[in-house]
Amino acid sequence: MREQIRCAVFGLGRLGYWHAENLAGKVKGAKLSVVVDPQEKIAEKVAHELGVQWSTSSQSILEDSEIDAVIIAVPTAFHADMIKLAAQHGKHIFVEKPLTQTLEEADEVIDVIRENGIFCQVGFMRRFDPAYAEAKRRIDAGDIGKPIYFKSISRDPGSPPAEFIQKSGGIFLDLSIHDYDLARFLMGAEVESVHAHGTVLLHPFMKECGDADQALAYLTFDSGAAGDVEGSRNAMYGYDIFTEVVGTEGSIRIGSLRHHDVQLLTDKGSVHDIVPHFPVRFKESYLLEMNHFIDCLRKEEKPSVTEIDGKKALEISMAAKISWKTGQRVHVGEKVKQTWRNES
Amino acid sequence: MREQIRCAVFGLGRLGYWHAENLAGKVKGAKLSVVVDPQEKIAEKVAHELGVQWSTSSQSILEDSEIDAVIIAVPTAFHADMIKLAAQHGKHIFVEKPLTQTLEEADEVIDVIRENGIFCQVGFMRRFDPAYAEAKRRIDAGDIGKPIYFKSISRDPGSPPAEFIQKSGGIFLDLSIHDYDLARFLMGAEVESVHAHGTVLLHPFMKECGDADQALAYLTFDSGAAGDVEGSRNAMYGYDIFTEVVGTEGSIRIGSLRHHDVQLLTDKGSVHDIVPHFPVRFKESYLLEMNHFIDCLRKEEKPSVTEIDGKKALEISMAAKISWKTGQRVHVGEKVKQTWRNES
Amino acid sequence: MREQIRCAVFGLGRLGYWHAENLAGKVKGAKLSVVVDPQEKIAEKVAHELGVQWSTSSQSILEDSEIDAVIIAVPTAFHADMIKLAAQHGKHIFVEKPLTQTLEEADEVIDVIRENGIFCQVGFMRRFDPAYAEAKRRIDAGDIGKPIYFKSISRDPGSPPAEFIQKSGGIFLDLSIHDYDLARFLMGAEVESVHAHGTVLLHPFMKECGDADQALAYLTFDSGAAGDVEGSRNAMYGYDIFTEVVGTEGSIRIGSLRHHDVQLLTDKGSVHDIVPHFPVRFKESYLLEMNHFIDCLRKEEKPSVTEIDGKKALEISMAAKISWKTGQRVHVGEKVKQTWRNES
Amino acid sequence: MREQIRCAVFGLGRLGYWHAENLAGKVKGAKLSVVVDPQEKIAEKVAHELGVQWSTSSQSILEDSEIDAVIIAVPTAFHADMIKLAAQHGKHIFVEKPLTQTLEEADEVIDVIRENGIFCQVGFMRRFDPAYAEAKRRIDAGDIGKPIYFKSISRDPGSPPAEFIQKSGGIFLDLSIHDYDLARFLMGAEVESVHAHGTVLLHPFMKECGDADQALAYLTFDSGAAGDVEGSRNAMYGYDIFTEVVGTEGSIRIGSLRHHDVQLLTDKGSVHDIVPHFPVRFKESYLLEMNHFIDCLRKEEKPSVTEIDGKKALEISMAAKISWKTGQRVHVGEKVKQTWRNES
Repeated sequence: MREQIRCAVFGLGRLGYWHAENLAGKVKGAKLSVVVDPQEKIAEKVAHELGVQWSTSSQSILEDSEIDAVIIAVPTAFHADMIKLAAQHGKHIFVEKPLTQTLEEADEVIDVIRENGIFCQVGFMRRFDPAYAEAKRRIDAGDIGKPIYFKSISRDPGSPPAEFIQKSGGIFLDLSIHDYDLARFLMGAEVESVHAHGTVLLHPFMKECGDADQALAYLTFDSGAAGDVEGSRNAMYGYDIFTEVVGTEGSIRIGSLRHHDVQLLTDKGSVHDIVPHFPVRFKESYLLEMNHFIDCLRKEEKPSVTEIDGKKALEISMAAKISWKTGQRVHVGEKVKQTWRNES
Repeated sequence: MREQIRCAVFGLGRLGYWHAENLAGKVKGAKLSVVVDPQEKIAEKVAHELGVQWSTSSQSILEDSEIDAVIIAVPTAFHADMIKLAAQHGKHIFVEKPLTQTLEEADEVIDVIRENGIFCQVGFMRRFDPAYAEAKRRIDAGDIGKPIYFKSISRDPGSPPAEFIQKSGGIFLDLSIHDYDLARFLMGAEVESVHAHGTVLLHPFMKECGDADQALAYLTFDSGAAGDVEGSRNAMYGYDIFTEVVGTEGSIRIGSLRHHDVQLLTDKGSVHDIVPHFPVRFKESYLLEMNHFIDCLRKEEKPSVTEIDGKKALEISMAAKISWKTGQRVHVGEKVKQTWRNES
Repeated sequence: MREQIRCAVFGLGRLGYWHAENLAGKVKGAKLSVVVDPQEKIAEKVAHELGVQWSTSSQSILEDSEIDAVIIAVPTAFHADMIKLAAQHGKHIFVEKPLTQTLEEADEVIDVIRENGIFCQVGFMRRFDPAYAEAKRRIDAGDIGKPIYFKSISRDPGSPPAEFIQKSGGIFLDLSIHDYDLARFLMGAEVESVHAHGTVLLHPFMKECGDADQALAYLTFDSGAAGDVEGSRNAMYGYDIFTEVVGTEGSIRIGSLRHHDVQLLTDKGSVHDIVPHFPVRFKESYLLEMNHFIDCLRKEEKPSVTEIDGKKALEISMAAKISWKTGQRVHVGEKVKQTWRNES
Repeated sequence: MREQIRCAVFGLGRLGYWHAENLAGKVKGAKLSVVVDPQEKIAEKVAHELGVQWSTSSQSILEDSEIDAVIIAVPTAFHADMIKLAAQHGKHIFVEKPLTQTLEEADEVIDVIRENGIFCQVGFMRRFDPAYAEAKRRIDAGDIGKPIYFKSISRDPGSPPAEFIQKSGGIFLDLSIHDYDLARFLMGAEVESVHAHGTVLLHPFMKECGDADQALAYLTFDSGAAGDVEGSRNAMYGYDIFTEVVGTEGSIRIGSLRHHDVQLLTDKGSVHDIVPHFPVRFKESYLLEMNHFIDCLRKEEKPSVTEIDGKKALEISMAAKISWKTGQRVHVGEKVKQTWRNES
């Protein structure tokens, strides 16, 4: 087992900062060596705060033999190039979701990763959330029999601004991709087809962006199972994440709206507050996934969620988007890629 | 206000028996005069138990001027004829859902009811369930803003036998029709289109019946709202009824799996039991809807859920069934009727 | 099995009216013959509404050989006399709690009941509440091992007026007596000693009445178990009834604050309404206890909760009251009776 | 604001280790310089793991001018001496509860702390738990009106071994002291009197130790409020921590038994797992209280929970113990101290 994994974090937006903060003191066996961001001011500020080096040049850091692993939290458009470069320099990779912008890029990075024999983990942090992890253990233990139906809801408490939506890939890619990954993870099966629906309910600008703020995808699995995934930007009451797996002998449900374990009773009723946004719900999961990444590197083992999972979730997301646009059921896999090529 | 409404119950299956039992002593202002069933033994037994007259002849009872209202709980195939006869004899009508077997029949009975100036209530008892009624009050009071998304789940704890399924009209008609009625009731809008999906997950015989045991319908409303309705025969853990209306300012959720208000804590966890089947969940609603029916007749007012609602729910159910069979989105209304004609 | 039990209800306050209403149509095998109240207007009104006879004379009704059973819902001060009279006339008795005002009276009525060989059920309706009944079943089935601690809370949403409090016997007798009965019922053991505390928190007039609006009693049982019972008139948020039995292998909890199964989600949190007062929580239990009473009479079996239970609960209540007044631990039983005699 | 607080941790049992771990990387502005334990092996192991110095000599570390603050997590018997020494050397102090073993010692350390002008925080970590902190905010905001009743339960999932119990000070001191501190914190009032009860229900060896495994204390406050606190070693189902403050306009409840946000539904019911032991429930609170301590030292502000609070909670605990032993109500304050002197 290796004593210490020396890490560089690329991209210091919210997620990049969290990864840096975790690696700087909370992840056993990790050493944060350097933080990298094209904006000098940001890089310097974070470096100072965490007591590490900083740089504005990805290239020089990738060439640094003192770096074992890189965390890629830059905009998705740069994922493919940066993964390829990092792999070619022999760095292990943690990359935020989605893996890449297109399925072609996904195939390319999968090849480069394989050729260079490095490990790559994709940031599907919900798998590391204690509740999802526990649900997975129980499903694997047979507590619900054989999984037959998957039902998942991800509702954001409002929409990001139009400029984000325009670059986001749309609701099926930006929001529901987490649920599509969970579908594969929890059902233990691959998604075969998607039939998706969507509309604009609350945010008219979505129409100009060619996006929906309310989405529903009906899934079929290669195991014979089925499922549905709702995505929404319209939950004015809070951040609402819920997943259920129905099995032949029972059902398992993950998630709770409850924020503080405090209940206020008045003559107006019994009230508890609601998880307001995703950091409250999932911040710990970012630490847990990073623990897993570093732990795998120290033991020289493959992470449990890799670039292959990154591609699979991307395929489902894209199938959903095409289905929504065409009104037709779409089979996940080769065909999708071609349709997508034609469309774009 | 009329002192007393004299009633006859036609059909003494489970629901007919409940209606008779309620009218025999629990509904203020009602007098159960006679129970009618083609099986003499059953009619006699129920009559004896409830202390009322019995008959095997619908005709003679309909001609009896001492009867003010009839409760029709016979098989759906006989609904249309019996409604027409009862209306022609000037009897007010309570009829179990679905109103009729076909939309043509629905149109016919609507005409006859109008021509004879009698009142007709359709047995959508969930509207009278205290939780749904309270939710309706709150939505109307503006507690969630404007309704924008409807989400409903009806899961049975297993399937009825094949012989029932064959005559049931299928999952969209037999099971989800309650949710389609709730959709109209709670959203305050009409369903415009349905796109339905379904499959067989647990009960292989469904395939031979041309039915599904798992169904999902995506709905759009004339208000611009949308929604989805899941129907299932696969909830091996109990009877699971849940409805949500998301609004522009909040959301309202109706239903609970909890049966007894008892919680057992052991080192295996905290357990409460689950509503096992529909009588546990909804028996009170049958009494409440009958109270409404009798109350309306005494005040000579129109019931809040009529034959028109019966037809509307039927239209949505049929649109869902056709959508599932054809894989296409189906608009609710005239077109549906025609497509249905063509198909059958 | 007897076909029908002919009943008379004495006292047409809220509970008396409920009993009459239940017996008039909702209890199988019961026939409400007559309602009795000293106020002619009330008796006549209820009789008219329920379609039965009425009277202002208890004596004449007790002498009527057409009456099998009487329901005593008159003020507690008259319980002892009326029970004795009814027993002497061979009527079976259902009497509201508390059985009598004093333990001497309790002993007297127990004797008279035994001598006349009639059945007497005391109105501890919580035992018939489906949740408490289910808890009892599970405790008896060994689901929590051996019961070792009893914890119960009864909180009223405010106080009755001073004039009621003055005649009520005080919080330990009027309110907590239900919990003391449940303690014996659920623990399967007798209460040996009580140490009670109390104070006035919200209703200053209680002090003039010599009563408390907040009470706590620590109990020990002859099985070695212990427990505590809180009574309160200060729950401004609603009617809060909760009971727990801790066992050697787990714990069981009965009760829920939730009124409608409706959850409202807004940016202020998740709200459900709270049971507002006891009819909402326990009205069904009054029907269920009456079903049991009539059912026992028809089968000529002893009810499950008798005058002996009535006396036992009274003993505990009085011990609690004395303990509170004296600041000392009080043993339940013979001594209590004497202390009580001395004090009063 | 000071850049960095250099800390030494004394005592490397479970809590001492947690404090060291937190200070080593998770508390902003803290530097863990050295860990101290009389057992060389333990000190060395922890020091190696956390990358800091170690020592077996408290004296030399207290004399080290490079140390700003000490964390005292040694056995309670040594608290008084170590606090005095640390204060005399000008070190700021974080000390685990209880502050000292006796009230005389408490008075002595309070004097020494005042004379040396250093800050002292006592480890009542529940105050920093997000749920308790939120409840405090809401109470202070007037959400429940004026607090009138305090109800708290602390149940351990079994008992520590006899050797621990013998040195623990007993259930009122070891277990309920957290609730007594919360009583003062949440009620915003001082406890005036205690009447305590207790017994042995599950762990016979407790009798030999002169301790109880089940305890109940009835409290009165100088604001006129009242309350009760249950302590138990008998919760075989898990770690059960619950607190309620009833106010004139509502009530607030803190705590939940639920561990994972996972619900398993089968035909046996709906199950969720239960918090198994205190680290699961409160580990985060240890980090949060340490953040507060370091933050206060950096800003040169007094911590929100000091040696005075440590003494007050100790007084209530001792009053409870004496009350239990004597069967009498005990006033908190001067008298208690004397009674305690006499008894011991």
